Amino acid sequence: MADTSAVEIVDRAAASVERLRSVRPRVHCLTNFVAMQLSANLLLAVGAVPSMTMEPAAMPDFVGSSAALLVNLGMLDPWRREAAPEAIAAAQARGLPWVLDPVKVERSVERRGFAQCLLDLGPSVLRCNRAERPLLEVGRRTVVALTGPVDRIAWRDRVVEVAGGSPLMDRVTAMGCAGSALLAACLAVEDDPFVAAASAMLMMKVAGTMAAASAAGPGSFVPAFLDAAHALDGEALQRHGRLA
Amino acid sequence: MADTSAVEIVDRAAASVERLRSVRPRVHCLTNFVAMQLSANLLLAVGAVPSMTMEPAAMPDFVGSSAALLVNLGMLDPWRREAAPEAIAAAQARGLPWVLDPVKVERSVERRGFAQCLLDLGPSVLRCNRAERPLLEVGRRTVVALTGPVDRIAWRDRVVEVAGGSPLMDRVTAMGCAGSALLAACLAVEDDPFVAAASAMLMMKVAGTMAAASAAGPGSFVPAFLDAAHALDGEALQRHGRLA
Amino acid sequence: MADTSAVEIVDRAAASVERLRSVRPRVHCLTNFVAMQLSANLLLAVGAVPSMTMEPAAMPDFVGSSAALLVNLGMLDPWRREAAPEAIAAAQARGLPWVLDPVKVERSVERRGFAQCLLDLGPSVLRCNRAERPLLEVGRRTVVALTGPVDRIAWRDRVVEVAGGSPLMDRVTAMGCAGSALLAACLAVEDDPFVAAASAMLMMKVAGTMAAASAAGPGSFVPAFLDAAHALDGEALQRHGRLA
Repeated sequence: MADTSAVEIVDRAAASVERLRSVRPRVHCLTNFVAMQLSANLLLAVGAVPSMTMEPAAMPDFVGSSAALLVNLGMLDPWRREAAPEAIAAAQARGLPWVLDPVKVERSVERRGFAQCLLDLGPSVLRCNRAERPLLEVGRRTVVALTGPVDRIAWRDRVVEVAGGSPLMDRVTAMGCAGSALLAACLAVEDDPFVAAASAMLMMKVAGTMAAASAAGPGSFVPAFLDAAHALDGEALQRHGRLA
Repeated sequence: MADTSAVEIVDRAAASVERLRSVRPRVHCLTNFVAMQLSANLLLAVGAVPSMTMEPAAMPDFVGSSAALLVNLGMLDPWRREAAPEAIAAAQARGLPWVLDPVKVERSVERRGFAQCLLDLGPSVLRCNRAERPLLEVGRRTVVALTGPVDRIAWRDRVVEVAGGSPLMDRVTAMGCAGSALLAACLAVEDDPFVAAASAMLMMKVAGTMAAASAAGPGSFVPAFLDAAHALDGEALQRHGRLA
Repeated sequence: MADTSAVEIVDRAAASVERLRSVRPRVHCLTNFVAMQLSANLLLAVGAVPSMTMEPAAMPDFVGSSAALLVNLGMLDPWRREAAPEAIAAAQARGLPWVLDPVKVERSVERRGFAQCLLDLGPSVLRCNRAERPLLEVGRRTVVALTGPVDRIAWRDRVVEVAGGSPLMDRVTAMGCAGSALLAACLAVEDDPFVAAASAMLMMKVAGTMAAASAAGPGSFVPAFLDAAHALDGEALQRHGRLA
């Protein structure tokens, strides 16, 4: 980690948790149908206010009145294909940060091509997994949040790794997608995209660690995870955060 | 409250709870993707039978074999734009009650216009919040269920307010949308739309109060809320209902 | 039951549970919006890997890289209308097993016609309920899994019935749809479609029985059901399985 210590990231993540609750930023999420409910509930749990309209013509209204944007390509459909460029243009016209989550590009050459086109527009952060990352070329302005058992957030010479969480997170659909929505929310309250990405991934891992303590399986994990996200504070981040 | 006392509303809400379980009315819901699962589960919990098909051509079949209709404009998409007038026409042709829920019209001038067009068709009840209400003109035939920390149901000179519930209800996506679905179900078993609207809002608040007693946050609130809705009875409505 | 004893089915279901966890088969689900989250979470809970993309052009990529396919007609929409034949063609080109779930065909003559067209393509298994079954003509190659308080799986002269579960399963949306997704997953690890269908229905009933033991209503039933599905093993299948 070149210029931001682990201690500093925990402190700034704690500040973001507080700002999410006081500012209550609007986050527009273009995301897939499986991920919508969990993503909206996670944003509400931490204090952010989600909207998810997908009509291309509505992008100026909805993105223009939001503080950050998520573009998620899971279950890519004709509406999001058309809405994504409109949403990104609306975000860029207002200088809003945005996150790209290129879901399952390893399963479709065509989707990979579409994801690369959007990636070339320069999102603040690319959130992806180890199957997706090698297939995409990332420009110098974009932070990469590579998630897995240990998350690795990287931008130029800055790198931070976040461990913790729970293996149950892989047995709940759309946890990664929900993390991307949380990342967009963090971008709304933290100016440094690298710190925002690290903060969001830290919040996911810590809430996952807290939830795993009471969950009996992947079913009870979900409500426990949302309860933990709602209860997050600096003390929880310090106690459970595992940064390196 | 001009002609229906609080005691009478509680009694009639209790009767509706029983009728929902015995009659098991079919309720067709044109609603948004985020709200579908919670709305369907709430309807099933109280005994109603949801359907949610959105194809315009299917509206005569599905609405025509239902006892009430919900039209919710959250995440408005091309299918519902086209299906909503068809569904309303099918409902009106059979004299079925219907609810309009104009979601987030404060975020889009275009959606506000569409909502007003549907509102001009005369729904039995408009269910909306304090941001949406001032933007819409309501005709004399439509009951207004304005929800918030205290709900206010009004029609001509009849007014009733419902308090209670839990602040956690604002931290769960689509609770308002699910309440509109429940309202449609109540219209199927209660002839007076004003009483049906008050009954549905009372049921939401009471189930929310009951759920909050055991919930540790917004995640555990949802299953507790559905359990409470499933367990509702006259005694619970009397004990927890706060009408004025 | 002609040639597969109840004891043998329990043993083979137990073997399928283990194979799902070790093989982690990919299952492509064309399913309805209400059912997506529960279906994906059930598949993940037992070890399978769901994908749910609906774009017709993506079917060769996604179905072609999967081990089984589900086609569910609930909330039938223009995308699935077009994608279903493409997905089935992709499955048949690779010899993959597939499940048809014709939801609510008793509510729409048109949907019934579409379902019959797909059924004529010869799915490995038709999963349906008692309202849907009489409206469809099933060819000799297709196993029928007829679900209800007691499930009946039949193919030519082979019949098995599965009892158990919980009445709460009817008060949770999309439990039947999720069962069809699990059935597709079982087809990916069990060569005999009759045994795969019986195994999946047995797993549903046993997980339902286990969940009902701790659930306080339909809300808490869902996380308990997913926890139970995640914990399934041969001992649980033997203890709670009720085959005849």
